[in-house]
Amino acid sequence: MTSNKLLIIGTMAYDGLETPFGKADRILGGAAVYGALAASQFNINCGIVSVIGNDFEESDLQVLRSRGIDLEGVEAVENGKTFFWKGKYHNDLNTRTTIETQLNVLETFNPVVPHNFQKADIVLLANLDPSVQLKTLEQIGSQPKLVILDTMNFWIENTPEVLFKVMGLTDVISINDEEARQLTEEYSLVKAAKKIHQMGPRYVIIKKGEHGALLFHEKNVFCIPALPLEDVFDPTGAGDSFAGGFAGYLTQTGNISFEQMKIAMIYGSALASFTVEKFGTENLIAVSKEELAQRIETFKNLTQFEIELI
Amino acid sequence: MTSNKLLIIGTMAYDGLETPFGKADRILGGAAVYGALAASQFNINCGIVSVIGNDFEESDLQVLRSRGIDLEGVEAVENGKTFFWKGKYHNDLNTRTTIETQLNVLETFNPVVPHNFQKADIVLLANLDPSVQLKTLEQIGSQPKLVILDTMNFWIENTPEVLFKVMGLTDVISINDEEARQLTEEYSLVKAAKKIHQMGPRYVIIKKGEHGALLFHEKNVFCIPALPLEDVFDPTGAGDSFAGGFAGYLTQTGNISFEQMKIAMIYGSALASFTVEKFGTENLIAVSKEELAQRIETFKNLTQFEIELI
Repeated sequence: MTSNKLLIIGTMAYDGLETPFGKADRILGGAAVYGALAASQFNINCGIVSVIGNDFEESDLQVLRSRGIDLEGVEAVENGKTFFWKGKYHNDLNTRTTIETQLNVLETFNPVVPHNFQKADIVLLANLDPSVQLKTLEQIGSQPKLVILDTMNFWIENTPEVLFKVMGLTDVISINDEEARQLTEEYSLVKAAKKIHQMGPRYVIIKKGEHGALLFHEKNVFCIPALPLEDVFDPTGAGDSFAGGFAGYLTQTGNISFEQMKIAMIYGSALASFTVEKFGTENLIAVSKEELAQRIETFKNLTQFEIELI
Repeated sequence: MTSNKLLIIGTMAYDGLETPFGKADRILGGAAVYGALAASQFNINCGIVSVIGNDFEESDLQVLRSRGIDLEGVEAVENGKTFFWKGKYHNDLNTRTTIETQLNVLETFNPVVPHNFQKADIVLLANLDPSVQLKTLEQIGSQPKLVILDTMNFWIENTPEVLFKVMGLTDVISINDEEARQLTEEYSLVKAAKKIHQMGPRYVIIKKGEHGALLFHEKNVFCIPALPLEDVFDPTGAGDSFAGGFAGYLTQTGNISFEQMKIAMIYGSALASFTVEKFGTENLIAVSKEELAQRIETFKNLTQFEIELI
């Protein structure tokens, strides 16, 4: 059987991180990397469209390839440097300050979708400049089952027009609570989700960090908590891992009903919970199928109940 | 069949409220009032120990009596004035400022548990001065199945020693996230719950307002979201309604297993969701058994899923 295809467009990066628990000068990161690593837990054909410089470590590419991730769409720029981001998390880990952003090869990136992925079943537009997301979408041959968009405050503030255009072509948006409020000027997340729905996406996911995530679709709402952890070690990539797990699960099943999206939310949250337990991609790379299955069980225990009305 | 007994110790009050949606100068309130109204949804024998002044409206007493709430333990002080609290909620409704507190009859309150409730099955120590909570507990004849404690930052800051004494006699504590952090000096709620557990309560409920609530017991954790609402009209009494619903459900079933506590959490959250939709006790008084059953169904749809591991 041929596996279903998931195309992920997003950054491949090196990150410098500082959290209350330690620091790392230069580790593998980027939205497409976290997303693809999470999605590679599923029996799918996953490809990345991205750009790297000649400083990108062969061993890091090997990590991705060894998990069956197709890198044909990754442009390697001679004499270019890979996107670098450096940030510092504050004590509550809910807020962070960007210390340094070197766009490097991202500045002139012109995405090319490999022929093999122009008919992808699902497209995940991981966090990236909306104009690049748009250029990628234009190369998708037939209408995919689902276009999933992840974005962040930077694009809401700086390139809202292009972002709105991408939103108009999107089925699912994944966005955090503060961004949803910023985008809609509504404090109530229920009202914010309604407004975002009117901007295009039929499904609206609002991520609330340590408080979990909400999925809105028509009159339906589904809520999944984040796993209560003793320590969140490093929140970097949590949202990307969530989006990758969500997209990966739906790509494998090929069924995009609301019931299946609930399960996709749980896989996404479970994979994000692994990511935040260690620095960078370390834990996400190490997690086995058995550990993932155990964590799904933990999510069931955390949320499921048997009720008889009294 | 004789109904199981729930004894609630807490304030009966008049509140002055200001929220972004409107204001009320003097409406029925108090932790025991919200708690008992929520608990009166269940087939139980519910009694209040509290104190009121001669300004307490007969019609308000009638509201409570008409719902089968036993007021024998409510002392009416001649020439006394009922406890009055006035507060203002800020735009996000998560923070509030106390404008005025008139303790009035609370200042000299000496609680007396009626004979009929000295063998209550469950005791809910609703938010109140811990020394009054302690005096009440000393009058309980036989060990109740469960002692549930609700408290707030004021008592943590001002009377920690007495509060710790009450906590040592408590099975379940219901506390909000900021208070749990304040009490334990731990940011992680998992760590905070462990520390609180060591202070007495076998069960620790941490309320997170619009983000729902967590129940910790030994190695078990259960998480319930708050109902996503378009507008929270007035958060006053949400925690009290939650505690009352939680205690009321467990009193009716008489079964205090972890599985039953999960259901109790859901009833508590459902009743709190009614409270916040209108001013004061208005909605909690009006809710029918059918509406409550519908809301439980809404909570099921919000949280339940069918998963087959893939």
